[in-house]
Amino acid sequence: MTTNPHLPTKQELIDLRREFHRFPEPGWREFWTTARIVEELERIGVDEIHLGGDALDTDERLGVPDERELGEWFDRAASRTDRTDVLEQLEGGRTGVVAVVDRGEGPTVGLRVDIDALPITESSDEGHRPAAEGFRSENEGFMHACGHDSHITFGLGTLRTVVASDFSGTFKVFFQPSEELLGGGKPMAAGPHVDDVDHLIGAHVGLDYPTGTVVAGLDEALAFARFDVTVRGESAHAGLAPNEGRNAVQALVTATSNVYGIPRHRDGATRVNVGELDSENAANVIADEATATVEVRGESNELMEYMRDSVRRHVDSAAEAHGCEAEISLIGESIREDSDEELVDLVAGIAGDTDGVSTVHRRRSIGASEDATYLMRAVKDNGGTASYVGIGGGNPSGHHTPTFDVDEDCLPIGVSVLSEAVLDLLGDPV
Amino acid sequence: MTTNPHLPTKQELIDLRREFHRFPEPGWREFWTTARIVEELERIGVDEIHLGGDALDTDERLGVPDERELGEWFDRAASRTDRTDVLEQLEGGRTGVVAVVDRGEGPTVGLRVDIDALPITESSDEGHRPAAEGFRSENEGFMHACGHDSHITFGLGTLRTVVASDFSGTFKVFFQPSEELLGGGKPMAAGPHVDDVDHLIGAHVGLDYPTGTVVAGLDEALAFARFDVTVRGESAHAGLAPNEGRNAVQALVTATSNVYGIPRHRDGATRVNVGELDSENAANVIADEATATVEVRGESNELMEYMRDSVRRHVDSAAEAHGCEAEISLIGESIREDSDEELVDLVAGIAGDTDGVSTVHRRRSIGASEDATYLMRAVKDNGGTASYVGIGGGNPSGHHTPTFDVDEDCLPIGVSVLSEAVLDLLGDPV
Amino acid sequence: MTTNPHLPTKQELIDLRREFHRFPEPGWREFWTTARIVEELERIGVDEIHLGGDALDTDERLGVPDERELGEWFDRAASRTDRTDVLEQLEGGRTGVVAVVDRGEGPTVGLRVDIDALPITESSDEGHRPAAEGFRSENEGFMHACGHDSHITFGLGTLRTVVASDFSGTFKVFFQPSEELLGGGKPMAAGPHVDDVDHLIGAHVGLDYPTGTVVAGLDEALAFARFDVTVRGESAHAGLAPNEGRNAVQALVTATSNVYGIPRHRDGATRVNVGELDSENAANVIADEATATVEVRGESNELMEYMRDSVRRHVDSAAEAHGCEAEISLIGESIREDSDEELVDLVAGIAGDTDGVSTVHRRRSIGASEDATYLMRAVKDNGGTASYVGIGGGNPSGHHTPTFDVDEDCLPIGVSVLSEAVLDLLGDPV
Amino acid sequence: MTTNPHLPTKQELIDLRREFHRFPEPGWREFWTTARIVEELERIGVDEIHLGGDALDTDERLGVPDERELGEWFDRAASRTDRTDVLEQLEGGRTGVVAVVDRGEGPTVGLRVDIDALPITESSDEGHRPAAEGFRSENEGFMHACGHDSHITFGLGTLRTVVASDFSGTFKVFFQPSEELLGGGKPMAAGPHVDDVDHLIGAHVGLDYPTGTVVAGLDEALAFARFDVTVRGESAHAGLAPNEGRNAVQALVTATSNVYGIPRHRDGATRVNVGELDSENAANVIADEATATVEVRGESNELMEYMRDSVRRHVDSAAEAHGCEAEISLIGESIREDSDEELVDLVAGIAGDTDGVSTVHRRRSIGASEDATYLMRAVKDNGGTASYVGIGGGNPSGHHTPTFDVDEDCLPIGVSVLSEAVLDLLGDPV
Repeated sequence: MTTNPHLPTKQELIDLRREFHRFPEPGWREFWTTARIVEELERIGVDEIHLGGDALDTDERLGVPDERELGEWFDRAASRTDRTDVLEQLEGGRTGVVAVVDRGEGPTVGLRVDIDALPITESSDEGHRPAAEGFRSENEGFMHACGHDSHITFGLGTLRTVVASDFSGTFKVFFQPSEELLGGGKPMAAGPHVDDVDHLIGAHVGLDYPTGTVVAGLDEALAFARFDVTVRGESAHAGLAPNEGRNAVQALVTATSNVYGIPRHRDGATRVNVGELDSENAANVIADEATATVEVRGESNELMEYMRDSVRRHVDSAAEAHGCEAEISLIGESIREDSDEELVDLVAGIAGDTDGVSTVHRRRSIGASEDATYLMRAVKDNGGTASYVGIGGGNPSGHHTPTFDVDEDCLPIGVSVLSEAVLDLLGDPV
Repeated sequence: MTTNPHLPTKQELIDLRREFHRFPEPGWREFWTTARIVEELERIGVDEIHLGGDALDTDERLGVPDERELGEWFDRAASRTDRTDVLEQLEGGRTGVVAVVDRGEGPTVGLRVDIDALPITESSDEGHRPAAEGFRSENEGFMHACGHDSHITFGLGTLRTVVASDFSGTFKVFFQPSEELLGGGKPMAAGPHVDDVDHLIGAHVGLDYPTGTVVAGLDEALAFARFDVTVRGESAHAGLAPNEGRNAVQALVTATSNVYGIPRHRDGATRVNVGELDSENAANVIADEATATVEVRGESNELMEYMRDSVRRHVDSAAEAHGCEAEISLIGESIREDSDEELVDLVAGIAGDTDGVSTVHRRRSIGASEDATYLMRAVKDNGGTASYVGIGGGNPSGHHTPTFDVDEDCLPIGVSVLSEAVLDLLGDPV
Repeated sequence: MTTNPHLPTKQELIDLRREFHRFPEPGWREFWTTARIVEELERIGVDEIHLGGDALDTDERLGVPDERELGEWFDRAASRTDRTDVLEQLEGGRTGVVAVVDRGEGPTVGLRVDIDALPITESSDEGHRPAAEGFRSENEGFMHACGHDSHITFGLGTLRTVVASDFSGTFKVFFQPSEELLGGGKPMAAGPHVDDVDHLIGAHVGLDYPTGTVVAGLDEALAFARFDVTVRGESAHAGLAPNEGRNAVQALVTATSNVYGIPRHRDGATRVNVGELDSENAANVIADEATATVEVRGESNELMEYMRDSVRRHVDSAAEAHGCEAEISLIGESIREDSDEELVDLVAGIAGDTDGVSTVHRRRSIGASEDATYLMRAVKDNGGTASYVGIGGGNPSGHHTPTFDVDEDCLPIGVSVLSEAVLDLLGDPV
Repeated sequence: MTTNPHLPTKQELIDLRREFHRFPEPGWREFWTTARIVEELERIGVDEIHLGGDALDTDERLGVPDERELGEWFDRAASRTDRTDVLEQLEGGRTGVVAVVDRGEGPTVGLRVDIDALPITESSDEGHRPAAEGFRSENEGFMHACGHDSHITFGLGTLRTVVASDFSGTFKVFFQPSEELLGGGKPMAAGPHVDDVDHLIGAHVGLDYPTGTVVAGLDEALAFARFDVTVRGESAHAGLAPNEGRNAVQALVTATSNVYGIPRHRDGATRVNVGELDSENAANVIADEATATVEVRGESNELMEYMRDSVRRHVDSAAEAHGCEAEISLIGESIREDSDEELVDLVAGIAGDTDGVSTVHRRRSIGASEDATYLMRAVKDNGGTASYVGIGGGNPSGHHTPTFDVDEDCLPIGVSVLSEAVLDLLGDPV
């Protein structure tokens, strides 16, 4: 067991992670985050930095917020960085960045990390270390509650280590926006830098594994789709002329009742849920509009599609039943793609030899949805291999909770495992 | 107050009524009933007797039972009468008869009575007079529980009285089949004998009015439509492959839930109900078929149509939501048509002068549905007048119950009022 | 026809009405409005002015907003009046005022007017007179869109006229808060000043009657109840553990579906509607809370109670079905109470003799809900008589619309009819 | 590989199977079947024959038909056998029989086979061998469409072979009634003969495996519960007084809609279905009764219980919502119990050495529900071992279809494997 001499120090990684932790930005609004990553990329020294439409296929983005919402976050970012040159390229929610290091002949290896945060108000309890130690979120109401601050740190730390090492071939780091909305994976996979990748590694911190545990292949991400549903009818006075309305609430209620009743599927697990039900009609007015967000999942892509198509059919039919019109917009989607056996072997071997690693699992179920799968699929479709790696971090409370945190000892472990795997996959220097 | 000397005796009327009471036949199956009426018409002596397609427009019939069902009742009738000459003309459920007495120049006056019975098992309790006095239904499971046996008696008794009296003009008695199914009024109105009627009177016995009460105009019959609904999907094993079914039960349940929720209407009372819900699928099989009978009513024809169209839309949409097909067949329909003021005046006046009548109401709400309205509408559309008259009969229990009966003192009252009204409307003899 | 010489001029009435129109305040937030009325009462000179708990039974109030909301309107009022002595008595939403003029022996006569506004943004269109002539609402988003500005003017104008006239007995004017929420009538009726009233008159302007039309008795107010419904369950991750949730959305959807399906009632018209459906759960979280506002109406109090009790039962049962708890808060209620024949006679007679009145209807249906009925009921329960009078005002667009307005010619007509009726009911001076 | 010389010939087995095939009897109505088995037991010669309450705990029976239904089958059986001594002991649906052979000291080994048939009309197509060769069902409408005729043959053939062989210990054969209703396993497990069994083997023919294939352990039977649901409300005339009903259809529709929406469970597959939905109310009557059969399944007993309890809660709550009462009767239930490793080893070994066996699977999923599991559970609870064995039979069409049949070559294979396994588990003769 030898340790790469170019690894950043633990303190350097901690500093980076805490800075990103303080300024969480949700999907398609990672303006400051992207600019700050670019600054680090410049410091490390990479051959290419791709932003905006050069980083991903912006037409494929899902769940992009409206202009007003984007503008507020853009302005907030602009007040925190002087890199207006970068910000300009991100306008309209075209966040994310791809870094490329080109050392000539040899394989192309990719590392994918996600960079967005969640609309969760971070705990200010003294027992919550970010609060106690002064790096709690400064974007009130938003929080890195899923560890993407660690993921950015993995990406930058690995890049710095690899750049300082000898290798031949090309190394790319994909700083992907908007994973939480399951909106960024597909456009990044459709972007110009994934097609020639031979081996792709993704990574996730935490997942209730203790520090020192590494999972070489996180599999069985549930395929997923999320919709915004709007039902439009016609209002009328509920006392004077109830029959003159076309009741959007009745339509949405019928649809909701039915989507929960979509039959179980013989081929495996499915999920459906309705959130953000909303109608603003006063009680004395027949609702002319009602909205909801619906999501479905499946153990396979086919199962997700079965659920997705059923939801569409139920919403359309319920609207029709009540004389309304329905609008259904896909705002997030992900597929299932499992890890390749060769990469699982490789990562498991490296992890077993890594300082601080006490337990290695070859494969485990991730149990949730994840859109790194789009990049994995693209690489595999071109004959490459991919794996999604778990880095245990002893998270004291669950992901997506106000007291989520990680044991920062996991940062050097993650960087070490990932950079060794990347260097192993790249060619020896010519 | 003079009494028409040609009136039948009370005992004659009682005998007639009790004979019809013993052999009740439901809608479109009144084979024996029609043949028996024809016998009486021949005894009385009328100018024309119209049967089958000569009595009504058979294409307009609603709710006609299937061949097997018709055949059983036909055979039963054939075993009770030797009038095969009449029965032959009724084959295929073409029941009912129109009698015409033509005395030359003068107005054409019509009397409409209905002749069908209900699928109710008559009480055999000793307190129920038909049971105690030996004229309980001999067609087990069926019963004259709405007084149409009395109506036939009104029709024959009035006809006999009028025939024996002097008048000029034409008198027609419409013995209408299938009122309970609301299936016979429309085809009889569309038949060849209604168009030239100048004045039409209909009559109903009972309605919770005591003997001695007459209502000159029973109004506000609820407009009505009844459907047979069949939803067809596809079966599948509920344990092994629930997703492979197209669940007719889920579709029908969604439709049912929604039709009960059709909005109230500003313009007045509406009604909806679902009956005979049925799916035969074993619990371990996804239902491939589910059926129901749905009925709607409205205070006006427009309100009924609002409900009817809403039911259709809900059934179609719910079927579509669950990948099924729906078949909706109209099996009964009636409209609202109120009584004309002139006839109300006339009948009220006559009733007030009739022996045995103690109370006369000019107009009352009938509170139920009734398809005599189609004949009333046809007459009025041609510039005539119509009224639907109530003859109190002190019914000891409600209509459509196993212990329904009438005080037979009402029979001579009814015949007297109706024949006086008819003769008044006909011309004096030339 | 003589005209009371003490009537205010039309311009005085217009000025008053326009001032109140500029500063509309919604129910329980009529702080400035109450203070401004008090100033006028002091100017007119009355014997007693009752505020806060002296005006109404504050425990009976329904639909009182939360502290924050009350505070904002209180502060706004405080910035517009220096009558902090009055405002102090209104804290916590204890708005409204009762004025008493006591002239010794004789009948006690009451006039009830309501003073609150609606959460409607007033039109700024030039065709809308308040906009064109500079008295459009200055409380943006709120508007006197139901004519209560005119009602206050009727109250003050009538009081001024009566005070200036000779009579014996006691005259009370009830300036009732929160009619739009149907929350103020009941507490005012339960307050200390209604019980001894012998004759009560209420008044409403507009209602699509032209100026010059008076309705002596507006009847058939739909009895009404409105609820806030909150269903509480338990959240869970919709992908990882859907079974661990207790789904408040499923419960509310079941309840909503069922309340729309509450059977029609034989005794008359009923209404039900669901508004403000809301659940804030993200789509990947089983909803732990969902809320709605539900309202029901009935042609009679019994019909409203039938609907109200059915809603409660459905909400409770649906919550139970899904393992949730339901909280149902009554936030508004009104009853039906029709006008007394004697007062209808009196008002119709006076109106017929009033300058500017061209049409008098004895009784008309009001078609909506109204809580003056609580005061009418209280008076009648004590042996008194009551009537609710309509004063046509040629409103150019419907009540509760952004362009509602009245023809101000109706103001002197209303004051004239009401003051004559009041003086007639009071005793002649001793 | 040696063959037991005491095995019956293939023709003997075929004759037995075809006789039982001709007279199929459904659950709790296996009167002739039981009597016929007793005759065979007497011919073979066993030490004890237990019938009625001596065979199973009759109080634990589920889904027993009503008296009339039992009586019809009893009479039919009485017309086909003169063993009235046996029939008498079976009265009231106490079918089934336990045979015991006691050879002193040594282990107690049990074999469980089921004996009931299905309500399926057997094909009379010439391509269907039972039709072509003259042993098609003579109980029209009923059929051994799941191979229980072969199971009886396995039981009798194995018993005859074992009895003729040398061993020490006790051998019991459980001829279990009513497996198709999932109603007989529990009472037989609760009966007096299972508790002391050390090793239990069950067997199923067919399951789409070809002849020559044996599965040593059929596992993962879905735990299962089936209910009869009756909702009782109150009828009323749908036109005259809809509010006076308590609508059983609305209640059942609400319950049905909700049970299909019971949340998926994190721990595995669940199933729910509603069958035999029925309400007999005429469309003009509010339904006073509605019934359905509901079944649920789960990959584990806990999952089944989760579904079962949810169904109960939904039915109760929906009834309450509509003012009705619900009655929920459990009419069938089964649990999951997998095979023990030792027995799987034993059977797999024996099968591999058996003439005619070409393929041996150690374990396979059964994919359906099965109540042999109750006996397996009882044996295991007492420290014993159990396995449920599959005997491939090349069934030409699926189980529970009108053309189900087996390749009779599987009969000697089944008897050979089962008797060898039983003799291996019993002791060597002392």
